[in-house]
Parts: sequence; structure tokens; C-alpha cells
Amino acid sequence: MAAHNAHEMTWEELRDSIEKVAILPVGSLEQHGPHLPLGTDTIIGVGIAQAVAEEIDAVVFPPVAYGYRSNPFSGGGPLFPGTVDLTAVTVMDLIKDILGEIIADGFTKVLIVNSHFENQFPIQEAMILVDEKFNHSATIIQTNWWDPLEPALIDEVFSEDVFPGWALEHGAVTETSLMMYLAPDAVREDRIPEIAPFTPPAYIRVPNRKSDIPAEGSLANAAHSSAQKGKLIAESACQGILKICAAEFS
Amino acid sequence: MAAHNAHEMTWEELRDSIEKVAILPVGSLEQHGPHLPLGTDTIIGVGIAQAVAEEIDAVVFPPVAYGYRSNPFSGGGPLFPGTVDLTAVTVMDLIKDILGEIIADGFTKVLIVNSHFENQFPIQEAMILVDEKFNHSATIIQTNWWDPLEPALIDEVFSEDVFPGWALEHGAVTETSLMMYLAPDAVREDRIPEIAPFTPPAYIRVPNRKSDIPAEGSLANAAHSSAQKGKLIAESACQGILKICAAEFS
Amino acid sequence: MAAHNAHEMTWEELRDSIEKVAILPVGSLEQHGPHLPLGTDTIIGVGIAQAVAEEIDAVVFPPVAYGYRSNPFSGGGPLFPGTVDLTAVTVMDLIKDILGEIIADGFTKVLIVNSHFENQFPIQEAMILVDEKFNHSATIIQTNWWDPLEPALIDEVFSEDVFPGWALEHGAVTETSLMMYLAPDAVREDRIPEIAPFTPPAYIRVPNRKSDIPAEGSLANAAHSSAQKGKLIAESACQGILKICAAEFS
Amino acid sequence: MAAHNAHEMTWEELRDSIEKVAILPVGSLEQHGPHLPLGTDTIIGVGIAQAVAEEIDAVVFPPVAYGYRSNPFSGGGPLFPGTVDLTAVTVMDLIKDILGEIIADGFTKVLIVNSHFENQFPIQEAMILVDEKFNHSATIIQTNWWDPLEPALIDEVFSEDVFPGWALEHGAVTETSLMMYLAPDAVREDRIPEIAPFTPPAYIRVPNRKSDIPAEGSLANAAHSSAQKGKLIAESACQGILKICAAEFS
Amino acid sequence: MAAHNAHEMTWEELRDSIEKVAILPVGSLEQHGPHLPLGTDTIIGVGIAQAVAEEIDAVVFPPVAYGYRSNPFSGGGPLFPGTVDLTAVTVMDLIKDILGEIIADGFTKVLIVNSHFENQFPIQEAMILVDEKFNHSATIIQTNWWDPLEPALIDEVFSEDVFPGWALEHGAVTETSLMMYLAPDAVREDRIPEIAPFTPPAYIRVPNRKSDIPAEGSLANAAHSSAQKGKLIAESACQGILKICAAEFS
Amino acid sequence: MAAHNAHEMTWEELRDSIEKVAILPVGSLEQHGPHLPLGTDTIIGVGIAQAVAEEIDAVVFPPVAYGYRSNPFSGGGPLFPGTVDLTAVTVMDLIKDILGEIIADGFTKVLIVNSHFENQFPIQEAMILVDEKFNHSATIIQTNWWDPLEPALIDEVFSEDVFPGWALEHGAVTETSLMMYLAPDAVREDRIPEIAPFTPPAYIRVPNRKSDIPAEGSLANAAHSSAQKGKLIAESACQGILKICAAEFS
Repeated sequence: MAAHNAHEMTWEELRDSIEKVAILPVGSLEQHGPHLPLGTDTIIGVGIAQAVAEEIDAVVFPPVAYGYRSNPFSGGGPLFPGTVDLTAVTVMDLIKDILGEIIADGFTKVLIVNSHFENQFPIQEAMILVDEKFNHSATIIQTNWWDPLEPALIDEVFSEDVFPGWALEHGAVTETSLMMYLAPDAVREDRIPEIAPFTPPAYIRVPNRKSDIPAEGSLANAAHSSAQKGKLIAESACQGILKICAAEFS
Repeated sequence: MAAHNAHEMTWEELRDSIEKVAILPVGSLEQHGPHLPLGTDTIIGVGIAQAVAEEIDAVVFPPVAYGYRSNPFSGGGPLFPGTVDLTAVTVMDLIKDILGEIIADGFTKVLIVNSHFENQFPIQEAMILVDEKFNHSATIIQTNWWDPLEPALIDEVFSEDVFPGWALEHGAVTETSLMMYLAPDAVREDRIPEIAPFTPPAYIRVPNRKSDIPAEGSLANAAHSSAQKGKLIAESACQGILKICAAEFS
Repeated sequence: MAAHNAHEMTWEELRDSIEKVAILPVGSLEQHGPHLPLGTDTIIGVGIAQAVAEEIDAVVFPPVAYGYRSNPFSGGGPLFPGTVDLTAVTVMDLIKDILGEIIADGFTKVLIVNSHFENQFPIQEAMILVDEKFNHSATIIQTNWWDPLEPALIDEVFSEDVFPGWALEHGAVTETSLMMYLAPDAVREDRIPEIAPFTPPAYIRVPNRKSDIPAEGSLANAAHSSAQKGKLIAESACQGILKICAAEFS
Repeated sequence: MAAHNAHEMTWEELRDSIEKVAILPVGSLEQHGPHLPLGTDTIIGVGIAQAVAEEIDAVVFPPVAYGYRSNPFSGGGPLFPGTVDLTAVTVMDLIKDILGEIIADGFTKVLIVNSHFENQFPIQEAMILVDEKFNHSATIIQTNWWDPLEPALIDEVFSEDVFPGWALEHGAVTETSLMMYLAPDAVREDRIPEIAPFTPPAYIRVPNRKSDIPAEGSLANAAHSSAQKGKLIAESACQGILKICAAEFS
Repeated sequence: MAAHNAHEMTWEELRDSIEKVAILPVGSLEQHGPHLPLGTDTIIGVGIAQAVAEEIDAVVFPPVAYGYRSNPFSGGGPLFPGTVDLTAVTVMDLIKDILGEIIADGFTKVLIVNSHFENQFPIQEAMILVDEKFNHSATIIQTNWWDPLEPALIDEVFSEDVFPGWALEHGAVTETSLMMYLAPDAVREDRIPEIAPFTPPAYIRVPNRKSDIPAEGSLANAAHSSAQKGKLIAESACQGILKICAAEFS
Repeated sequence: MAAHNAHEMTWEELRDSIEKVAILPVGSLEQHGPHLPLGTDTIIGVGIAQAVAEEIDAVVFPPVAYGYRSNPFSGGGPLFPGTVDLTAVTVMDLIKDILGEIIADGFTKVLIVNSHFENQFPIQEAMILVDEKFNHSATIIQTNWWDPLEPALIDEVFSEDVFPGWALEHGAVTETSLMMYLAPDAVREDRIPEIAPFTPPAYIRVPNRKSDIPAEGSLANAAHSSAQKGKLIAESACQGILKICAAEFS
């Protein structure tokens, strides 16, 4: 809802909101298979951030729409056109600058909703550097949308598939379902791939090779996706994040 | 239009578009007076980028929604809450990474539509570094939306005001008019300020002081803004940019 | 065995070894509970690296003995004296420089054996940057010692405990057992803590608080550790890494 | 006059001068047409700085004799031999270090006299970073020599030419006149070019092309230059800067 | 002795040692002629650090085993395989991070024992940056092992050779003797070269050439080395460092 | 002589000089005792560079007038007002940028004349980085003015004093004599201090203390300085550098 978006507020409205929770969605522009758009992570992150914001009257800052390099064995790295990756230093500096300015404006409760697996580490480094610079004067939380999901929900969503772990849930049933719920027009339903179980090596290797992940770009089966599953996931994520906010920001 | 937005394309669609012009809007999150939202620059930049994209079937990448520090005597610098400024190094690295990835994906025609005055310098540095790294293999253009406007249009828009120069057109008649045209719901028309002519010093000074610019945050009169003026400006900017594309990308 | 350690070779011996696999152990100086020394990660990493080197006649470079910041909810971050953390930029630059020099010397097969959970991300960034700089001329593998373990082994090691996941295996049964096998004199057996099951939040928070992890510094029960378990783990890790080498370096 | 130059003072003399205004000229080594030397910017900046210093008994620090990259459509960028450009990061760090040391020595009034158009932005970034580091304890002013000129003077100087704007006054009538006044031996009067009006595009483009600016390197007509005009400009710039000092440093 | 090594202490033992002197040996991985191993500098530095630690009950941190680039006319630079050089920025950041963490843990007496000539300058820069960051709250000393040697000892060690200066004592009589005393198994006594007096130019040149130093890699005669000389040097270095500690840390 | 100064050449004259040797003097702004000005290093470096340039028709670029931090036990570090020190990173980047542009302009013979002891290390790092970037296409030499002096000359200059080593020849007999010869008006002859022999510790310590060096700022006796000695030194330095040029640039 517009009323929660910082970029739609005037500076005076923002000034009067510094007691609220500031939410920063961090996504990516990355290939997500033949059926999901490049902005999938950002769309999901913003959707969940806004759902949280409506519940607790928070302020959602413009999403970081470009993220850290996707891992070679996860998103496929630079081999898929359309994946626009930032280097680690850039992501760290970018998040550090944004967090620093939000805190300098007076916010003391900051929630980062991350939706791109690889972003976690550079975001964490930025958090630590900002915490040091601002002498521990604000509480900053980073959560992935998938972290606070109820285990029961995961069982339900994966009733027809084996849960491959979050690192492999790329363009697969959870992201596809979330997109069918949050941005149905952006999903090419006729192009949802049936991916055979794919087990990447546990190690990391360079050079990255075209054959490192399935040619479609998805890493696990998305065939059993549905908007209904997406709604359940989004609501569970939102509820989980609300619990974190209650625990850390009150 | 969605069809031109990279974040709404799949990677295969993007891959099939690399002969097109890639457009990167670069905006800011910055105070724009009591009547315009913090995202004004980004909203205008995206609006004009999409108009251009529709004409020449280009690809619009997600906007850079946080920009370089606003000048103390222009946007008021860090003294207004809601202005989330990046440092010069961060902006340069961010633009450098994004441009590099777009070129690595195969695009050879890249257009940056800038809508935040202060962004020009760090964007230019990034362009030069990328040009060197990629051995001059792509043409990259940076234009502000106001640069290619017809002089006659400026006379028309400022028929009731004295044109104060672009550095002072902050939250004033051109930006307000553009917003009334592009995002009318985001304009608080009842809060449009009548600003007395303000002439900042030509020099730059730190420390920045609260009294350096008018308390409202706008730098020039916005009272004579209208959606009609906004439409004229947007169309002239679009036409001007199309001429640049014709000159440089064909 | 000395014959495999680069720092014990002359430059002529090293020059004559560039067809071999170069192994770089990356560890940390970090608290590991009341019973294990600060150098636990480095000692384990070097031990496994040398076991691998003996099997395939590889060259082991001096370990990186200081690692990336331990996560607040994992190693306890900066709150435990003795944890000497590097920032992300330092680790990336350090690994990048070392890898670059090893490759410049002529090695084309490089294996990084990581033994500190948090190192993974900065090492990966360094690998990607080096791969780009050297134009993909060497194969670089990063593996944690725990990644290639046989699932059956994990069941055996955790016959008396619930496996808490690798992020929580800090100062717990696997590391303690490995140390009892590799460096028994360094283990204070009388100080092995009986830690109640600890479930940290899935999210990340700053500021870090003393109460974020158990006061002892261990994250899971180490009571059922044994040198015999350590031997099994070390051998399984070694075997697993040999398989990776066979797959990637032949 | 030597008595005002920091590099000609002993440390004890400098120590006894910290109540005075510290002046830092920032110039460039850049092509200035066929008739002006590469050090034109530095020579002008130092000349005006010393004139100011004599009036208010200030201390002139050694000039920064290498500046930020000249813009492709302004100074011609890297295509003219003799232009020795610094990258943005180097200029920012250099100015930041120098300002920081001057302030650490006890000066609280610092005036930067800039004479190279492109330097403005990296100098400003450095000023902001130093202001933050030293907690707003010194007033730092940056002015270009052309900023405080009286409008009437500009009319007089351009009585025979159309004023093309300061970005195009490169190797043209103002710089040539100033050099004829300040360093007449350094001007090749027989090589003063008659340049046809040149209107560069308003946008910025890479790659830079040899044809982007006139082959001579000057951007506007210098034929009507004279030492008398140079004297008027230098005196007006000096007077204007003295007014700034009076307003900001008393 | 193990009891002095930080990496063999638990975090509680380290915590109880912060009143002691913290010693950080900084070495290198660098060619040292046909008869000495690549780790010569690190082995010597650790040996002397531990001797000092035993005398004053200090804590020895893990050595920095990779050092700053060897000079072209000294160690031969990158032309000898096995020399793994770090760039200046990496060494400075690495030492800065380590020192900062040691001081943050509570140590106020820090001694750096350097054993690689070229490390001196980047270590000094790191010391200054840390001193500034921690507001002069700890005393940090850097000494090379050769600096505090008694002049009489140098005469004795060089009774059969001309002392070529420390920059040329590379793989020569002092280092070889020290290694024969500290790590005799690592010395290839049959490969000790008889090097003709070598006088490199006093200047520095790039590109580095294979012929810049003797082909063996040693820079001065090592034929008259002995474990007895090594013992004398080690003891004198230790005594000298103890005097520094007495003067600065009490 | 003006004809050799790059900043007094037009770009066309510089373009026609790229076959010549390019000379870059690197100095400092640093306390040099009660009798010598802060710019002593730069004045000496430029003086010698110009003498060399006249002999071999070389091009002298504007001096780098701010240098790397003076050592605490040498120049006294930051404790003397007027010493304006750059950090190591800034000096390296600055020299790297300047060298890179000189080489990009076509020069293949570059001579750096250094006159500030502490500059050697960051200049060397910059040389190596540029050499790598430009693929060894230019020969770059760095020499201090004191390195190529004839030993006999040193005996002559120090006939009345003990030569304390170059690190302590700060504001002492060689620099004072050179200044009496090169810039006699800048020497306060009545303030030449008679300094008792000063032996700083061989180690490096932070924090720096006011008592670390003599209160005057000079480190050795300057009483026996003379313009005649200065002339001998300058000529010997020039002759020595000419030999280096003959050896390396022909």
C-alpha cells in the first residue's frame, strides 16, 4: 500500500515516521528459469515487505533491485543473460550507505527482507560495519523470507515434491507459487519446466561451466506450483517476520 | 509498458533483446519539498525511460533508486530526513557493475537516463571505467532528462516564472508538473509551496547548515505547475532523447 | 608430511611441482568453547589438507590462519576474546592475492580446504575475481571439510546426539573429535562442555549480545566426542576430497 | 609573494599562522589549445590564490597540479597528449588527505580555489568526508575562480564574443587573457586560434572520439584575449573571493 | 613453547592473558636460494618470537605467513616460483585488522617481530591507522629481528665475509645460520651456494628482469654459515628485543 | 629551465617529446627544522630533476608536492605543524595514475626523482602496478637523489660531521647545503640549529610522542652546511642520475 512506501512519502511524512520500523527489501535481477521474470526476487521481497508493513505500519524503502553474484551452482552465475550481478564490495558499500542514512535520519528499528540467497553475507558485513559506525544505536535485523516459515507449511507445500533445500529452491515451487500469487501476470504458466531432480556438487568451482546447472535455469521442479501455495507461503513468511519484529523491536 | 521492463522479462526474452537499446534510469531518494514524494527523481526518470522504450522498442532496466549525495545548496544535503544519499564511491561502483553486466550480456547500445543533478559526475566516472574495461566495445550515453529539451519549451513552461537554472529546479515547476502528469496521486497539490526567489551562493561550503536552503526544501516556485506542462516536458524530453539515440545508436 | 609443505620446499623444488595440485587451507583464530584451542579450524584444515596431499602428492601452502568474522549467532562474533576476525574485504583481497600468485607460478589445479564456516563467501568472491583476472586458466575448487562426508558417517558420529546442522557444529562433537584425533594434546578433555540443545534464531541481528549464544562458546553438545570418531571423520573428509580432485583435476 | 606560501615557510612559521585562512589551489595538467601551456589551470589558480592571500594575509599551500579527468566533450579527455588525468577516487583521497592534515594542524578556515571545471565534484565529496571525520570543526569553502565574477565584467570581457558558458571557456578568451596577464611568457600569442563557435552535445558519451571537440583543443574563440582583460578578470575574481571570505570566515 | 601460542590456547586462557605482551610474527613465503625453504622468514620470526615469549611470558599469535612483495633487486620479485607476494593494500589491511582485534580484546602491549625486509613499510602504515582508530590506547612496536643485534655480534658473524647490509642478507650467512640453528632439517646443506659479491643498483626499476639478481636467488655468500652462528644471532636478537620490551612496555 | 617543464609546454609540444625521458619529481610538505622551509624536499627534487633535464633534454612533470607520512622517528610524523602527510593508499594511487597517463601518452622512459625518504615504498608499489597494467611496455626508474652520490663526495661533505645515515639526514648538512645552493633565500641561516648527535631507536613505535625526535625537528647537525657543499652534492646527484639514464634508457 502506497502509504507505506518511503518513495511515495514527502520528507515531512518520512520525518514523522522515524519511530516506525524501516523495511529494506533486497532482491536481485537474476535468471529464474523459463517461466519467471528476472525481477522475481525483488517482486517477492517487496510483496512480503509490504504485507508486513501493513500489519505494523512500517515504512518500506525502495528495494535494492540488483544483488550479489549468484553462485555458479545455484543461479548459474554469469552464464545466463539477464543476470546482472554486483560484486561483493559494491553490495556491501551500497547496503552500508543506505542503512547508515536510514539510521542517521533517526530510525532505530531496521528490518532487511532478503529474497536472494547469495545476498546474505554481504548484507551481514554491511550490518556489522554500520553497527560499529553508529555505535550500536539501532537494531538491524536481516531475514530471508524463507527463514521464518513454519515447518508444517514446508511439508504442505512440498507434498508432491521432495524439498531440495533453500539453496536449490530457485525458480522452483516456492518462488513460482509466490509469483503466481503476488504477480500472476508475470508468470509464463505454459513455460513452467518439469525439472528432474538436480544435485549440484557441494563444493564451489571456477571456471563456471554452462553445464553446471540445468539448461532451463531452474534448479528444482516447479510443476506443482499454485497461487494458493504462494498465498500460504507469503502469509506464513509475513507472520514469521511479525514474530521477529515483536521479539526484537518492542 | 511491462513488455519493455527487464525485470518483467525472462532470461530467454532478455537474451533475445540484446540488439535493442538498454536503458538504465538513475534517480534518487531525496526530499523534493512539502508536496512531492521522496521518489520524485526515480518516478520521472522511469516515466521518461519507458516513453522512450515504447518508441524504439528498448529494454528498461530496474532504476537505480538511490543516488549520489545532494549538494548542500541544492537538495539541502543530509539535513532533510528522507534523503538517503550514497557516497561517490558507492555510486561509481554500482553503476560500473551494472553497466559491465549489461555489456557482458551482449548489449552494445546503452542509454542512461539521469534525473538527479548530482548523479552526473559519478555516473560519468563509471562510464569511463567500464569503457576502458570493455575496450570500447559498447556505446554508452548519459543524458539528463532536461538536457535535450527544446529552448522554446523552456520559455513556455517558465512563462509565469523566471527560469532559475537546472540546478535550482528542485521541487519546482518542472518536477512538479512532470509529477502531476506522470504520478498525479503522488502530488500533494494543497502543499505546493510558493517559494520566494532563492539564490544560493555559487560556492560550496561545509559544514552544511539548516538555513542553507529554504525550509520547505523546494528551491524555486512551483505554484504555476500543471499536468499539461508536465506532459509537454515529458514529450519534449522523450523526443530529444530519441534524437540522441538516432544520432548515436544507428 | 614435510615433503608436501610449500614452506619447507626450496623455490626450485616448488618450481618442479607446478603440475601437482596446490592446496590452500583456510582456517581462523576463533573461540571454540572451553576445551578447544583458538586455532582449532586451522589445525583441522591443515590436518586434512596434509592427508589429501599424501595421497595425491600435492603441495600444501601455508594456511590462512585468520578468517572472516564469525557470525554473531554462530561463533559468537567479537564478544569472545581470542577471536581475531578479518573484515570481508581483507579476506577477499588476501585470498585473491595468494591464489593469483599460485596461478602466476604455473599451477593450474588449486584446491582450497576451508574449515571455518563464514569463510565460504569471501573465498568464493576471491575465486571469481581471480578466475576473471587469469582468464579461466586454472581450475580452483573450494570445499569445506564437512561437505563431502558420507551421510552414513554423519549418522554414525551422531548416534548419541541430534545433528544440529553444520552451522552449529562449533566446538561440538565433530570438531572436538577431530581435534582429539589430530592434536590430542591441544584438547582440554576435562573441560568438554555438556551443552543443552541451542537453537539460535534463523535471522541475523546487530548489535550482537553476550546472551546470543551459550556462555561457554560451544553451540552443541561435545560430550560424545572421541578420537575414534575424529579418525572416521578425517578419513571420510579426505576420501571425499580425493573424489572431488579425481573429478575436477584429471 | 613568497611570505604567503606554505612551502616556503618553516614549520614554526606555519604553526604561528593557524588563525589565518589556508588556501589550497587545485588545478590540472591538461591541454589548453595550441597557445596555452598544459599547466594553465594551475598557473591561474595559484595566481588568484596569491592575490587573495596578499589581501588577507592568508597561507597558500602547494597547488594540486594534477586534476580530475577532463570531460570528453570539454577538455577532450584522454585523446590529447599531455593531459594527465587522475581518477575520481584518487582526487577525492588526495584532497581528503590534504584537507585533513591542514585541519589537524589547527586551521579552521580553509579556502579551495579551483581552476579546473571537472574538479568540482570530487573536491566536494572530499570536503564532505573531511567535514564528517573532523566533526564539523572547520569551515571549508570551494570556489571556482569564475564563480564570483561580476556579471558586468563578463559582459565587458565578452564584448566581442558570445559567452559560451563556463564549461566551454577552455583555452578561450578568459583563460588566455588571464595567462597573458599572469604568465605572459607562457602564451604563444602567434598560435592563438580563431575557433568557430562549437556546441558540444549536452549528453556524455563513451567511447570518446577524436572528433568530439575541435582539433586544436580550444573550445571557443580566444582571438580577442588581452592582458588587460586578464587583469580585470583576476581582480574581479580576487574581489569576489574576498567577499566570500568576509562572509564565511569572520 | 606451546603454552605461549595463542592458537593453542582456549578463549578463556587468552582472556586471562591480556595483561601480557602480544607478539605477532610477520614473515613471508619467498625464495631464499637453493638451500633454504620458502618459509625461511616465517620460521625465523616465529623462532625468535617464541624465545622472547618464554622470557617474558608473552602470547605469540599465529604468524602472518605471506608478506609484502619482495623488491626486484632484493628477493628477486615475482620471477622466482614459490614467492607468493601480497600487494601493499592487502598487507596493510591484514595487519590493521589483526592488530585492531588484538587491541579490541584488551591487549595494550603489542610487539610485531618482522623477518621480511619489505614488510616494514606496510606494517608501519597499518600501525598508524590502528593507533588512530583506537585513539592511542595501546603501544605497538615493530622491530625486525636484525635491528637490535649487538654490533660486536655482527663483526663476529661476518668474520669471514664482508657484511653487505641487511637488504642483501637474503639467503646468506645470517638467515642460513639461523635456519641451521632453528630448523636444521629444513636446510639443504649440500646446496649452500658460494655467491660472488653482488651489488645491486641502488635504484628501483620495472620491468623486473631475470638477470636482476644472481640466478640462485641468494644475494650474498652463505658458505660460512653455522648453527653456532645462528644460535648467537638468535640469542642476541632475543636479548635486544627484551630490552625494547623493557623500555616500552613497563 | 622552462623549456623542460611539462606544465609550460603546449599539448603539441608535449606530443612531440614522447621520445624523451619523462621525469617526475616526488617530494613532500614536511617540517625540516627551524631553518628550512616545508617545501625543502620538493625544491631539492625539482632542482635536481631540472639539472638532469637540461643535460639530456628531458621533460620534467609537475612535482608531487605532498608525500607519504614521515616516520615518527625520522621526520617526527604528525606532531610538527606544517607536515601535510598523505596516506599510503593515496600516494600509491596518485603515482599510479600519473605514471599511467604519462605512459598512455607514449613515453617509454620514465624517471622518478624522489627526495623524501618515506616515499620510496608507495612509489615502488605504484611502479609495479603500472608495469603490470601496461604489460611492461615502459621502463620506469625510481631513484632518490642521494642514492647515486659518489662515496668520496660523502666523505668530503661530512669532513666535519659523522655521517648519520640517510634516514637521519633530515634538515641536516646535506639538505641545508642543497637549499643554500638551490634556494638560498628560503634558508634562515641564523636559525640553523646545532643538533647534538641523535640516535633514534631502530624500531618503530606508535603512539608517536613529542619527545621522539629533537624539538627543533632536525635530526643531525646542520652547522657545517654551505652552498659550496650543496653545489657538489647537486652536481654529483645529477651525474649519478645521468649514469642511470645512460644504463637503462639507451
